[in-house]
Amino acid sequence: MTERPLILLSNDDSINAAGLYASIEMLAPLGDLLVVAPDVPRSGASHALTVNDPVRLRKVKETEGLLIYTCSGTPADCVKIATGTLLKRPPDLTVAGINHGSNSSVSVIYSGTMGAAIEAAMSGIPAIGVSLCNHSPDADFSASIKYGRIIVEKVLKAGLPDKISLNVNVPDLQPEQIRGIKICRQNRGSWIEKFEHRHDSLTGEDLYSLTGFYRNEEPEADDTDETALENGYVSIVPIHVDMTAYGVIDTLKNSLEIY
Amino acid sequence: MTERPLILLSNDDSINAAGLYASIEMLAPLGDLLVVAPDVPRSGASHALTVNDPVRLRKVKETEGLLIYTCSGTPADCVKIATGTLLKRPPDLTVAGINHGSNSSVSVIYSGTMGAAIEAAMSGIPAIGVSLCNHSPDADFSASIKYGRIIVEKVLKAGLPDKISLNVNVPDLQPEQIRGIKICRQNRGSWIEKFEHRHDSLTGEDLYSLTGFYRNEEPEADDTDETALENGYVSIVPIHVDMTAYGVIDTLKNSLEIY
Repeated sequence: MTERPLILLSNDDSINAAGLYASIEMLAPLGDLLVVAPDVPRSGASHALTVNDPVRLRKVKETEGLLIYTCSGTPADCVKIATGTLLKRPPDLTVAGINHGSNSSVSVIYSGTMGAAIEAAMSGIPAIGVSLCNHSPDADFSASIKYGRIIVEKVLKAGLPDKISLNVNVPDLQPEQIRGIKICRQNRGSWIEKFEHRHDSLTGEDLYSLTGFYRNEEPEADDTDETALENGYVSIVPIHVDMTAYGVIDTLKNSLEIY
Repeated sequence: MTERPLILLSNDDSINAAGLYASIEMLAPLGDLLVVAPDVPRSGASHALTVNDPVRLRKVKETEGLLIYTCSGTPADCVKIATGTLLKRPPDLTVAGINHGSNSSVSVIYSGTMGAAIEAAMSGIPAIGVSLCNHSPDADFSASIKYGRIIVEKVLKAGLPDKISLNVNVPDLQPEQIRGIKICRQNRGSWIEKFEHRHDSLTGEDLYSLTGFYRNEEPEADDTDETALENGYVSIVPIHVDMTAYGVIDTLKNSLEIY
């Protein structure tokens, strides 16, 4: 065993995504890496688990300080399998990404990348999801490597509060164009869906493909991730696993007459 | 058009689950129902979306006040497809369930049933996920039908705050054994995983099946869903879609030296 930090890495764009190798480049100077990545793209996998079938795991690379597995499961499965079977001790940090495309605002809920980060945080491991606001397969990851590494170094040094993960998003800019890093709250907004429709006359089924656009419901706010990104900052939103809407508990007791 | 409320129903245990038909029995006296349920079991689907393939939709039943579709997608897909393509106006309420098995505490994050409810809430529709603390296929749903209906009636009358869904869990008891309904916060706890392992000598892959048990990290708390359920109450946790850990923002600014 070396004295270097042990970092678990996963993603949702699969073992073949350029963003995974950008993460390896980002993290290699900072610690020993165990990579467990999905064998197929799992964008939009959220926090899904594979509960009815076994999950398959296969080692694909082993070199000094870098061990890579591919897994048939979801991003959250990858983290569970890694910590539950491959590792003898919890990693010092879990990183997910670098994701091809933004996971800011409510996208945190749909994101398989953040599913992996949140899963790690739920079991007490400091965790960071890193996403680049460009979803093309050949996006330029140089700014996300630079700023992701800065944030990872800070977290390795200072730790994170219990069960907290960081949702880090990086604007699609050159490193020298980025104005800094801001700790933010999740922007309020929603996805407005459209569906492309076709009819399968053989099966009688209707087929729908999801498309849509994001509607920012508070464009004037100065403390949200969306605003930080629009202004050229890297955004960090601390994410917790308690989904209780504390602010409405008393309201509900009165409106639903449940005391 | 009738004057009856329009209720959208989905689940994660699939079109074939007894809990779905328990929901139909629960809701039929209260409104007209559009059911869009996954064609295969999707337990543990969380908030996953199908983003790379089209989703298939097929009508399986149409009678007065009851229209049933099955969908190849996830529970969240079912809600998006229903509201985005099948319905001309938003439903008055979305119900998900009745789930075979508890979705209390952190299970809310993994639950496909709650994924459907949260998806509806995100687009502004009042939403309730109902789960029975018994995951067997032939569980007795009589208490969850009775108490689910009471809660649905209250929500149809009073509405819910914007973007709030309710995570309702019902103890596995007879209706007359249930002591009442409590509005709670999400219990703090975690799943301790174990994996059953076997090796596939043909492919060289290792196969892991997920098992585990829940560890309650605050068994003494008197205001959580777990405690309410243990004491024979139906629990309601209001769930929101803002995952920001507001309480640690200032701590993080100092510890990570990001201002």
